[in-house]
Amino acid sequence: MNFSSKLLENAVAEFARLPGVGQKTALRLVLHLLNQNKQEVEQFSHAITKLRNEIQFCTRCHNISDTSICEICSSHKRDASVICVVEDTRDVMAIENTSQFNGLYHVLGGLISPMDGIGPSDLQVDSLVERLKDGEVREVIFALSATMEGDTTIFYLHKKLKHFNINISTIARGIAFGGELEYVDEITLGRSIVTRVPYENSLTK
Amino acid sequence: MNFSSKLLENAVAEFARLPGVGQKTALRLVLHLLNQNKQEVEQFSHAITKLRNEIQFCTRCHNISDTSICEICSSHKRDASVICVVEDTRDVMAIENTSQFNGLYHVLGGLISPMDGIGPSDLQVDSLVERLKDGEVREVIFALSATMEGDTTIFYLHKKLKHFNINISTIARGIAFGGELEYVDEITLGRSIVTRVPYENSLTK
Ligand SMILES: [Zn+2]
Ligand SMILES: [Zn+2]
Repeated sequence: MNFSSKLLENAVAEFARLPGVGQKTALRLVLHLLNQNKQEVEQFSHAITKLRNEIQFCTRCHNISDTSICEICSSHKRDASVICVVEDTRDVMAIENTSQFNGLYHVLGGLISPMDGIGPSDLQVDSLVERLKDGEVREVIFALSATMEGDTTIFYLHKKLKHFNINISTIARGIAFGGELEYVDEITLGRSIVTRVPYENSLTK
Repeated sequence: MNFSSKLLENAVAEFARLPGVGQKTALRLVLHLLNQNKQEVEQFSHAITKLRNEIQFCTRCHNISDTSICEICSSHKRDASVICVVEDTRDVMAIENTSQFNGLYHVLGGLISPMDGIGPSDLQVDSLVERLKDGEVREVIFALSATMEGDTTIFYLHKKLKHFNINISTIARGIAFGGELEYVDEITLGRSIVTRVPYENSLTK
């Protein structure tokens, strides 16, 4: 592209680095911002830098939070005997949206992926094991994407957790292989939590 | 959506205000930025606010520029006797990309659209008329989208300009009705400039 302005070119280049945003889309978004007043653009930029600079993660479940213990972990209305293990905050949002789960979460921060060089030590595994030690937790539900990475992660975690006296289950697979959890519709996702199966059973299908 | 963090919610809301960006896409983009280091996010925000705060428009052709007279207007290699009238800077970029035009531009800043409440006074019309007064310009080419708004704008401008002793042409219509100029492929766009027709002829089709 031939830009008539270096400032414009820089702003478009920054947008084009976002996933799924090509040069033309980036240009369209930047020109849209140029048509907004300065205060609105300032507000846009500020919201992003403020998030990045002040973001916190719950010290218990590792979900994105504005406080050191998140609202879910600190709620007395939640069932602390069940932990639902998810990949990231989008999955927490998706499950909360179904209103079918009233336990706590554990956000791994990723999935094991040898291809991408992501191993167990890059994920919040140790703190999950730690949460099971006081014997309060009776069930761990794996709600991970039905992908190779999801299955590998469940396999690894199951080995780590099976010596605890707890039920280990996975959400029911109504989800096609390769399906990304965050794009599943609410009803399917909600049902898959309700009809979860013991991990051992899910292997023998 | 149930956000676990107000900071996250604000940042997503700002992204979701961009055209064509829904809540899920906004969340994906924001979480991507969260995974970048602080300096990179600062750079992203800075590029946008800097553009908005320091943006200039060429005082002659009104294209986005880092200087008061843009590179095209100040170039001695360009043919100052031909002015190509376009809607916005994306159209200048698209035409420059074809390498088929060596004249100057005039960026209207929009198209006449009674539906959207955009009239001639919202566009850079007076300064276009002004540029024709010294008699140096011999041709004006309208390179506007093949839409109702584009045609209305050409009709209006033609009335304003016809008493000058200049050729008025429109780019050839290889473009389907409703086609947005910026999405036309280079070859079609380049050819449509080369095979432009006198405005009077374009009416009698
Ligand atoms: Zn928490
Ligand atoms: Zn200029």
